[in-house]
Amino acid sequence: MKPVRLAILGLGTVGGGALKLLQENAAEIKRRTGREIQITHVGTRRPRPDLQLEGIKQSSDLMEIVRQPDVDVVVEVMGGIHPAYEVIMEAIKHGKQVVTANKALLAEHGNELFKAAEDNAVQIAYEAAVAGGIPIIKVIREGLAANHIEWLAGIINGTGNFILTEMREKGRAFDDVLKEAQELGYAEADPTFDVEGIDAAHKLTILASCAFGIPLQFDKVYTEGISKITAQDVKYAEELGFRIKHLGIARRAEKGIELRVHPTLIPAEELIANVNGVKNAVLVQANAVGPTLYYGAGAGAGPTASAVVADVIDIVRDISYTEDGAGTIPQLAFEALTNVPILSREEMTTGYYIRLNAEDQTGVLADVTSILSRSGISIDAIMQQSRLRDLIPIVILTDPIVESKMDEALAQIQALPAIRGEIVRIRLESLDS
Amino acid sequence: MKPVRLAILGLGTVGGGALKLLQENAAEIKRRTGREIQITHVGTRRPRPDLQLEGIKQSSDLMEIVRQPDVDVVVEVMGGIHPAYEVIMEAIKHGKQVVTANKALLAEHGNELFKAAEDNAVQIAYEAAVAGGIPIIKVIREGLAANHIEWLAGIINGTGNFILTEMREKGRAFDDVLKEAQELGYAEADPTFDVEGIDAAHKLTILASCAFGIPLQFDKVYTEGISKITAQDVKYAEELGFRIKHLGIARRAEKGIELRVHPTLIPAEELIANVNGVKNAVLVQANAVGPTLYYGAGAGAGPTASAVVADVIDIVRDISYTEDGAGTIPQLAFEALTNVPILSREEMTTGYYIRLNAEDQTGVLADVTSILSRSGISIDAIMQQSRLRDLIPIVILTDPIVESKMDEALAQIQALPAIRGEIVRIRLESLDS
Repeated sequence: MKPVRLAILGLGTVGGGALKLLQENAAEIKRRTGREIQITHVGTRRPRPDLQLEGIKQSSDLMEIVRQPDVDVVVEVMGGIHPAYEVIMEAIKHGKQVVTANKALLAEHGNELFKAAEDNAVQIAYEAAVAGGIPIIKVIREGLAANHIEWLAGIINGTGNFILTEMREKGRAFDDVLKEAQELGYAEADPTFDVEGIDAAHKLTILASCAFGIPLQFDKVYTEGISKITAQDVKYAEELGFRIKHLGIARRAEKGIELRVHPTLIPAEELIANVNGVKNAVLVQANAVGPTLYYGAGAGAGPTASAVVADVIDIVRDISYTEDGAGTIPQLAFEALTNVPILSREEMTTGYYIRLNAEDQTGVLADVTSILSRSGISIDAIMQQSRLRDLIPIVILTDPIVESKMDEALAQIQALPAIRGEIVRIRLESLDS
Repeated sequence: MKPVRLAILGLGTVGGGALKLLQENAAEIKRRTGREIQITHVGTRRPRPDLQLEGIKQSSDLMEIVRQPDVDVVVEVMGGIHPAYEVIMEAIKHGKQVVTANKALLAEHGNELFKAAEDNAVQIAYEAAVAGGIPIIKVIREGLAANHIEWLAGIINGTGNFILTEMREKGRAFDDVLKEAQELGYAEADPTFDVEGIDAAHKLTILASCAFGIPLQFDKVYTEGISKITAQDVKYAEELGFRIKHLGIARRAEKGIELRVHPTLIPAEELIANVNGVKNAVLVQANAVGPTLYYGAGAGAGPTASAVVADVIDIVRDISYTEDGAGTIPQLAFEALTNVPILSREEMTTGYYIRLNAEDQTGVLADVTSILSRSGISIDAIMQQSRLRDLIPIVILTDPIVESKMDEALAQIQALPAIRGEIVRIRLESLDS
């Protein structure tokens, strides 16, 4: 099959990220799609010497790019309403598939854009417009399609969540944390879009349409920001067992649908109350599945590019459809499976929790630690517990080590005369990313 | 377009649940697919008088059902290896699409089944086989398709997670909690599959294949159960800042792939460490998006039916494909949008956190509570804080009330002579399902 040809419009954080991701993961993506993806055009005004652009046509005339015959899919990642609107309309008229990350554009003009796409029999894919790398649009449009969705509540602005997290954890004031967020690059110089909830309202508009099957109605979202939240209220909420989060909520009520973005007290033991820093999460309540939650990075080059390129892959799989009934997605995710070796237990690497019971005998700890050290095992923590039935429980946490080494070391420790009973070992994972 | 015709094989918890869901959500599902789904056959030995089976052919001869011309999709929800294997093979040979929730069958015989499906140009869809209602297969096969997945770690057995949660929260012993889980119906009379990790290993086998593009290799999963975990180790882990979870882990290592199911200490502040009770969650680490987490019910009639029917909808959308380039999934999730009214702020209903500052004057609390009561607002909690700059902060939490009532009440309270400064109101959501 011929390659699918892309034009990427905008080479900022997201556009550059998408280009790099398509290049770096090209082999794996081809294993997943069975078809090559070729970037033929980029639309940009500023040169990006840090990017690999060889063989790609560069132009700042976006309207001209989307008319080119060697473009199948237009990826709009420049942001803003104009000229994004006009460029996408032109792309649609020329029968191009469209991928966009532009939440403001969709929330405010999506109804017209989707109508034009329908009239011209093309798709506008927009996973990256909501909650960055979390595939929440796919989950709602497809994964939960059997359900009647009752409500959803999302932390869908990372900047706001970073500010509220800092206020809670460190008792800091709003203005103080906002200034830090600006210095860290989490918040814009004009933070209104983020802290006053406009960005979240854009995303909520899109989520609500997918959940309930209603037109996009950004102007009807009730929107309240977090700038009036005080450290005092954060503290009182905590004392009452709640946390304050800036949520976007869409809910079916008896007389209609509620669309609202506002600071919200939620029970501290809820999983979504424990989503901290710049992370996003969306909790969906649906009638068959009950509550489900989706968590991840809501912004940044990598996460947003992940969503943009997933949309491209969906389109590639879609336009590669054959009517043989076998569907567009490979059964086990990849067109061709590879036979990577599966490691034996002895070859696996993890950290360990070790518990041993020692007689109260001088030198046993020295013996144990020197055996571990000789086997190349680093100790992360040691905790000696209070005596239990004449024996002293000793707990050791180790850094990751290949399991065969641990087998050896534990056999030696088990043989020490001062050790009583069987040594307990439980694996330990830091889950570091 | 003609209806898509289903045969449901097995009318136990999952089969009955799928049938009910297809009937109860029929109108909404049709809005999503634009096409009717008709159950033409059910395969069952036992009558289910509680189900609505009018107009559906019933038989216990499963091999005969899957050969019928009025069947497009076979939904296998009877479980077990035999005769599920033979019946699915027969269905595939007759060109039927297959949906299954059978993790043991796929983990142990999936390679042959997928090969047969490919040879006969049909799909086997299996979202319900892993983590119940969480659309994790879709997320990995499609949502994260742009990524190189590095590892994943999942709580993919609800019974085991319930037991470990009870042990930690109440300091109980394993045997004691297991007995309760059996009484509650969370654990089977023979709990081996759940507590020894075999069920989790089946699911991990499938997840790993989708994440890495490797053949299904259940026999190579290192599997260790939770039956040897003691209350003592749970407590020591907690003291060191960790929780013990029964995880299924698939990880790319230098020399190959690790597939392992075992009790694991993980940092207590990780979101997945806070997934409690019978709930499931899968944490995926991928190179572009970073860590993302997916949480929900891993078992039960409703959640499993949600996944089964989502697979049916995917197939319906797929076989309704037209080559016009518009794709198979409606842009805003539904074929036809509806114009449900969006409520104004005054019409919305939420709970409230109210903070007011009162002069230390007898009777103010009585005045405030009587105003709230007259407006029909129930108080959930009142907390009087220590005096701050000559004023007493009073915090009140209320039950949900329509916002116009709260506006009225707060206007009256604000007018009380003893109230100083502006009353703070923050909305409160219990996020109850």
